[in-house]
Order: sequence, then structure tokens, then C-alpha cells
Amino acid sequence: MTDKGTESNKLGLNCVAIGGGNGLSTLLSGLKGFVGLEIGRLSAIVAVSDDGGSSGRLRDELHMPPPGDIRNCMVALSEDSHLLSKLFRFRFEGEGDLGGHSFGNLFLAALSEITGDFAEAVRLSSEILASKGHIYPATVSDVRIAAELTDGTVIRGETEIGKVGPKIKRLCLEPENCHPLPDAMKAIENADLITVGPGSLYTSLLPPLLVNGVADAIAHTAATKVMICNLMTQPGETDGLSASKHLEIIRDHMPQVRFDYIIVNDQVISERQATLYQVEGAIQIGVDGSISESVIEGAKIIYGKLLDEGDMVRHDPLKLARSVLDRVMA
Amino acid sequence: MTDKGTESNKLGLNCVAIGGGNGLSTLLSGLKGFVGLEIGRLSAIVAVSDDGGSSGRLRDELHMPPPGDIRNCMVALSEDSHLLSKLFRFRFEGEGDLGGHSFGNLFLAALSEITGDFAEAVRLSSEILASKGHIYPATVSDVRIAAELTDGTVIRGETEIGKVGPKIKRLCLEPENCHPLPDAMKAIENADLITVGPGSLYTSLLPPLLVNGVADAIAHTAATKVMICNLMTQPGETDGLSASKHLEIIRDHMPQVRFDYIIVNDQVISERQATLYQVEGAIQIGVDGSISESVIEGAKIIYGKLLDEGDMVRHDPLKLARSVLDRVMA
Repeated sequence: MTDKGTESNKLGLNCVAIGGGNGLSTLLSGLKGFVGLEIGRLSAIVAVSDDGGSSGRLRDELHMPPPGDIRNCMVALSEDSHLLSKLFRFRFEGEGDLGGHSFGNLFLAALSEITGDFAEAVRLSSEILASKGHIYPATVSDVRIAAELTDGTVIRGETEIGKVGPKIKRLCLEPENCHPLPDAMKAIENADLITVGPGSLYTSLLPPLLVNGVADAIAHTAATKVMICNLMTQPGETDGLSASKHLEIIRDHMPQVRFDYIIVNDQVISERQATLYQVEGAIQIGVDGSISESVIEGAKIIYGKLLDEGDMVRHDPLKLARSVLDRVMA
Repeated sequence: MTDKGTESNKLGLNCVAIGGGNGLSTLLSGLKGFVGLEIGRLSAIVAVSDDGGSSGRLRDELHMPPPGDIRNCMVALSEDSHLLSKLFRFRFEGEGDLGGHSFGNLFLAALSEITGDFAEAVRLSSEILASKGHIYPATVSDVRIAAELTDGTVIRGETEIGKVGPKIKRLCLEPENCHPLPDAMKAIENADLITVGPGSLYTSLLPPLLVNGVADAIAHTAATKVMICNLMTQPGETDGLSASKHLEIIRDHMPQVRFDYIIVNDQVISERQATLYQVEGAIQIGVDGSISESVIEGAKIIYGKLLDEGDMVRHDPLKLARSVLDRVMA
């Protein structure tokens, strides 16, 4: 796999997926199946503002970008049966020095140290994993998120910010002048399709969009822009926020971008799921008229039955990918 | 690469190298160049009684065999330029949780946990590294070394035993009933050439030879058996031991085996090297008549100029491999 960033495969779409966390890896695992068919080139621009868990420990010990979200995307884009993909998914157990560390994170850490270049480590790892797509950290700057709350106080770090979402007035990156990778910017410029979401609003979706120049590049490209709504509110981060409110908040942070489509799941979750999630304080969003086309000027709302069949409330990767691709194939 | 253990490549020699530490990996890196030429199949049977450093920490945290010596052999048998080979050689720095850990060891640790089988993890890693040979842990039992000293006391563990070599009366494994891998035994049975050494006498060479059945298998095979003498005494472990004494000690521990050849370097080290090593208490062995053919019945002593050109006193991998192969090609 080459990675020039500028190449354009005329036999298929140039797709760019932006976000982080489980949401992005779910979408990528669905889109992966269309690479070489409708999709000519698949790129992911991934949040690197995590500061907890194995990623946070590596960040502190080795002063590297947090690799966790990127690792998940790599695994999503590799063949499931690939031995290294299994290794990347492995996490050491126990309370020792290694306990809790994801092997994929350690792999990226070692390769970063050897190459002295996190983005190059990501590229080489993708190659080793026979990844079906190109993965770019949103920035290689050592960046953290900060939030100004409605009462004027400022809090810092993903872990803290994930607890006070509804009180956030404005999210920003520190330092603010962090730069995107040139190859990621080229991928946006050459895109036929750009997706944002699904994913944690403040800790996965907004951070990559706040990197210098990214929102402008999205605004200026001719690509079809698709926002994918989350399925559930996220306790601490988006309690009580409707689908409309999610969109408003994204728009507040990048007013220059107009989405062409908003994909909303309207398949109602099972009673059992509703009960289990309610215990944690999460409720379904996107149903019961929580969104209207008037919210975001010009965007068309696309409803679909997009749930998978597991116990967790998740998008079905293939149904979601199909819904996204239908927007631009139409 | 398949790994049936029984296959015999009629186009080249079946070679089996036994030992551990730097000595074994030096020999393997030399023999590697002859695979596909004089050598049809190259196997290494590697000590797993290490209990210090990164290996010791993994042994304690994850209850796995110590991977360090095996990792070094894998690196020696892979292409130097291979990216994963570079990763396997990488060691994390600093004082944090990862500081001091070799990435190759972590790789073997993760793969052992996934497969639940250390030998299988070694085999898969070798495959990933495009290894030019087959690497077998001497045993997959959780084995440590113990030594009875001349005064009757017993001490345990590689770290301690490496400090009191000259006082050792007899080395043994605990538990004594540890078993070799069937594939390693088949490699010995089918061998045309078996090498022992170079390497640390008590902590690298004797442990794999003490595994149940290994010495008998070596004794019964028709292979040419070659012992490679160390270049220097090792402070703490072999102070004052001549080449003859090394051989006597090996013979004491496996009296059923007769070596056909003893390879001895007789190239004198530089004055600068002699001075530097003397500071640590190490002196050259194998020169100045420190060995005679009468020591081990039937063995022929082969002298050679076998040093490499570096600052450290090391065998030149190619010269050593050539000298070994000439014994059986003659």
C-alpha cells in the first residue's frame, strides 16, 4: 500500500471518515468491505486527545500522542483473522507493570520511538497490518482538550471533560495552533465523501475538527458531507442532548461547514436495552421527532434501521456503511 | 515456512545449534547466510532459564518462560532490515512501567497469552519475522537452574549462579523432570550437525543440555557434534577456567556425549581489548596450550582465527559458521 495522500483512484470514491472511539471504528469496519468496489481510497482522521487508560499512561511515560483510538481504527481496517490484528486487540491483564496495556498501543509506542515520528509509525503499522485504509492522527502535536463551561470556569483533559458535557459552552484544543498532517489535508481536499461521527461529541468528534485548518478544508471541498448521529446519549458527556442539539453544538464549533446529509437511526432499541442503558443514565436519541430539517440549513435527514443485533446498542457496520455510500452514489 | 520438525531437506544439511545468550545468536547470524546453500534446515534449541531483566519481569508478571534468549535468536535469524526485526531489537528506556522492557519480549508475551502456548508463540513470531530457521525453547516447563556448590550448599536462579561458577560442583534443573519439545527432539534425531556453544557455561550452555532426554538424543544421533569454545572467561561464572576445564564440566554433565570436533579460536586479542577486559576480570581462553586432544577422548581440536574486528571480543559470525560447516562438509 502506498500512501501519497494525493493519489485519487478514479475507479472508486475517495472517502474520509473523521472521529474517534468505537463509533469511528464501527463505521470503518463497515466501509472496509467496499474498498476496491465503490470505495477507491478510504482514509480516517482520528482524534488524539485521549488522556486515560493505556493511552494516557503511554502519553505520560513516553510523551507520545495517545495511540488508543488509532489502534482501534487499524484493527477495524485489517483482516479480522490476521494474526497481528489479533495481537493489536490484545490487552495484558493483572495489576503488574503491563496490566491494562493494549499490545497495539505498545506496538505503536515502540515504532514511534524507533522512527521518531508518530505518523510514520502509524503508516508503517498499517502496512504491517495490511490495512484497507489510510489512518492519520488528527495532529501529531501534543494536544489536549479544554472546555469553557457556561459558568465561565475552564476544565482540561478528556477524562474530566467527559463528565461535564451539558455544562460546556465551548471546547478548544491546547495548544490552539496544532497542525494537521499534510496528507490528511490532501485526503480532505480530494474527498468525494466526508463523514463525521458517530462518536463521543466532545471527546472524539469535535477534537479532530478543531485542528487548525481542518474545518476550512471540509468547508471548501466539493465532497458530499455526511453527519452520522449517535444512537444514545452518553452519561456525563451528552445527557439530555437531542439529536438536534448535537448538530447545533457541532455547528457552533465549525460554522463554516454545511452538511449535505444527516444519517439518523430511527429503529427503536429493545425494552431490555432501554432498561439496561437507563441504569447508566443513557437514553436513545434520534427517534420521537428529536430532529428536524430546519435545524441545519440545507441538510437532508436520512432515517434508517441501522442497529446491529447484539446486546449493546451499536450501529450495524454494513448497514451504516451502505447508508453512507448511498448518499453519494445517488 | 512450515515447521513439521521431521522434514529433512536432502539438498542441504540439517543443523541444530544449542545454547543461549549472545554466543548462540552470533553463531546463528553466521549460519543464516548458508540456509538454502549448504544448510537445508537450521534449528536452534534455546535456553529458557533466565530470571533477570525484562525476561525475569515477564516471568514474574505473566508466568511465562523467559523470552530474552529466544528473542535474540529470532532477530539473528531474520533479515536485519526487516521492520519487525528492528522492533524486536528495540528496548524501552527510562524508569517507567515499560522502561527496560524489550519490545520483542512483549511481543512474545502477548502472543503467548493469546495462543496459550509459548512454543506456538515462538513459531508464529518466527513466521512473522520471516526467520531463516526454526527456534525451539529448550523446554516449555517453568524451569530454573540450581547449583550444588563444592561446600555442599545449594543456590538457585541464573542471576545468583552466574556469580559463583568456579565453586559449582553440579548444575541441575528444577523441576528435574522438565520435558523438551517433540519437534526439538526430532530436529536432534534428524541432524547432520549439532553445535554446542559458544555461550555462558552454566547459564546458557548446560541448561538446555540438562532437559530430560536431550543429552541421550544427542548421544544417539549420527550427527557430527561440534563444541565451540568460548573466547574469554566470564567474571563470576568461569573465572580461571581453561578451555579444557570448560569441556570437562560439560562432559561431567552429559558423559554419554562424545564431541567430534572442538573449535577453538587461537587469534590473540588486541592489547587494548586485553586491558579493557582485565578490568572486569576476564581473560582470553583457548590460546597458550590451554587445551589438548587428550582432554576429551576422540574429539579433534580445530584452531582458527575467528575474531571479528569490533571493540568487543566476539566471534566473527561468518568465520565461525564457515569453520563449523567445514567440519561436516569435509
